[in-house]
Amino acid sequence: MANIKDIAKKAGVSVTTVSRVLNNHPYVSEEKREAVRRAIEETNYKRNLNAVHLSKGETFLIGVVIPFTNHPYFGLLMEGISNEAVKNNYKLVLFQTNYEVNREVEALKMLQHKQIDALIICSRSCSWDVIEEYVQYGPIVLCEDSRGRKVSSTFIDHYKSFFNALEYLHKNGHQKIGYCIGRKSGTNSKQREKAYKEFLKKIHAPYVPHYIFDQCLKFEDGVKVVQQLTEMDDPPTALLVTSDIVAAGIITCCKEKGISIPEQLAIMGFDNQPIAKIMHITTLEIPLVEIGKKLFLQAIDKEKNSHEEIQVKLIERQTV
Amino acid sequence: MANIKDIAKKAGVSVTTVSRVLNNHPYVSEEKREAVRRAIEETNYKRNLNAVHLSKGETFLIGVVIPFTNHPYFGLLMEGISNEAVKNNYKLVLFQTNYEVNREVEALKMLQHKQIDALIICSRSCSWDVIEEYVQYGPIVLCEDSRGRKVSSTFIDHYKSFFNALEYLHKNGHQKIGYCIGRKSGTNSKQREKAYKEFLKKIHAPYVPHYIFDQCLKFEDGVKVVQQLTEMDDPPTALLVTSDIVAAGIITCCKEKGISIPEQLAIMGFDNQPIAKIMHITTLEIPLVEIGKKLFLQAIDKEKNSHEEIQVKLIERQTV
Repeated sequence: MANIKDIAKKAGVSVTTVSRVLNNHPYVSEEKREAVRRAIEETNYKRNLNAVHLSKGETFLIGVVIPFTNHPYFGLLMEGISNEAVKNNYKLVLFQTNYEVNREVEALKMLQHKQIDALIICSRSCSWDVIEEYVQYGPIVLCEDSRGRKVSSTFIDHYKSFFNALEYLHKNGHQKIGYCIGRKSGTNSKQREKAYKEFLKKIHAPYVPHYIFDQCLKFEDGVKVVQQLTEMDDPPTALLVTSDIVAAGIITCCKEKGISIPEQLAIMGFDNQPIAKIMHITTLEIPLVEIGKKLFLQAIDKEKNSHEEIQVKLIERQTV
Repeated sequence: MANIKDIAKKAGVSVTTVSRVLNNHPYVSEEKREAVRRAIEETNYKRNLNAVHLSKGETFLIGVVIPFTNHPYFGLLMEGISNEAVKNNYKLVLFQTNYEVNREVEALKMLQHKQIDALIICSRSCSWDVIEEYVQYGPIVLCEDSRGRKVSSTFIDHYKSFFNALEYLHKNGHQKIGYCIGRKSGTNSKQREKAYKEFLKKIHAPYVPHYIFDQCLKFEDGVKVVQQLTEMDDPPTALLVTSDIVAAGIITCCKEKGISIPEQLAIMGFDNQPIAKIMHITTLEIPLVEIGKKLFLQAIDKEKNSHEEIQVKLIERQTV
């Protein structure tokens, strides 16, 4: 059976060119593409792509670690990553981790075993010790501040942006401010918690543990938050909600219960998702699609250890 | 360098067992797993997984074709597919097609070249002629009625469910009924159009082309629909909206403009997404996560040509 070298010889092109044609990769002249196609037809070549990978060491697959599919935050990141992958003719291998360390290690192992060319970790469960064992095998890209590590990263400064958002609520007259978070134990959440505690100190406000609402990921989680608020003797007057979709759930639920926004409860969202615009939610714009795009480009970039901080922007609307 | 056969020999197990251990596949006894681990350590074996694939012909990768990421309908399907993949220790290769035929063909070619074990097509752009060329290479699973084809499928009867929904609106006193659809040219949409036209004939109502709103995919598309409605001399009194998220956008926008629902405009959603429950939207429940799960299980099933129809359920709430 003809192999890739035979094809290259017959077509009068390099093995790399044959591989590019087989992978539908751009940047091959139509002339060469045609020559390869003819050679393939004449030799009745049925390639085994895994063999191609063995010879080339490139798979045109990029791994993406996400905790779960179908979440608006990761949905927007994935949108950016995936659109850019389409443009560059790469495919994505999805690693849904449910925040289990083992599943993230599996992704790292696929990088080690050259089954993927690079790995994007959208939200990390592994410690740095574990991740750094694998940097030798290929590019690893993270969506958190990873300066000083042997990886690349695109990130926002969660401490600073959270602190600024809290100050904005305070300037608008609020002293009792709570927040809703997706996962308290996440690395970004820890930065936010730090900002929250230091902000409280700054304004001489007490730390009230039940002003923090954990596990707020979806629209329907807003129902739970409003329920808890109505049961409090001394509820917060403002909430920083780290996802617009949760903020939308809270607002919808407040309307039903006759809680007026922002008079009785001020709400500040995060992300500036389309729903924030339509529901007039004051929010912090985080360009997630743009971040996803940059994460992908860092993954296919041979230059390692690039780091980019993305700026957030306060969008004032009607809920604060 | 030791290869997989050497490991198998040293550990006293079959090559398949070694492969399973390398792939973190379940159903290997802890004893054998340990023997393989020891053998790997002793030989300092660094596997090349692509070589493993060559010998085994299994990748534990399942391809998934979706038109775009970050859409609530495909998000729920992906949630079902991905959760089931995690359970069965498979990874997913994502093919975002943007409804371009070429990108779907790339996915089919990866099946041909044994880079993936099976392919799930959530929404098809290729004609049947093209797809059927590839059924010889591995399982292909579709999310549309594919009975009589050499593939597997999990589907709902879009004709029947659309017709029933229209009858429900008619029974509630509506004669002028329009609908909002994601993509008019889709195979499911064509079944719906057929149902719509035959329903109009049945109730002796005229076919009004501008009662059909195309390209309704997101929350914000609801704004556009309401805008168009307000500009009509004789608008429909009821809308069948094939996505709850679009229905939610329409309802939110109607509230702002003082259009009362259901008095001035009845809205019926599709899917029964969480947002439908919170906004009290009357909807057709389509168990998309469950469908995703079934699609995945059909993909890893060696039994070809299984077909399952999923029933939809009318959920009566407050928007009709």
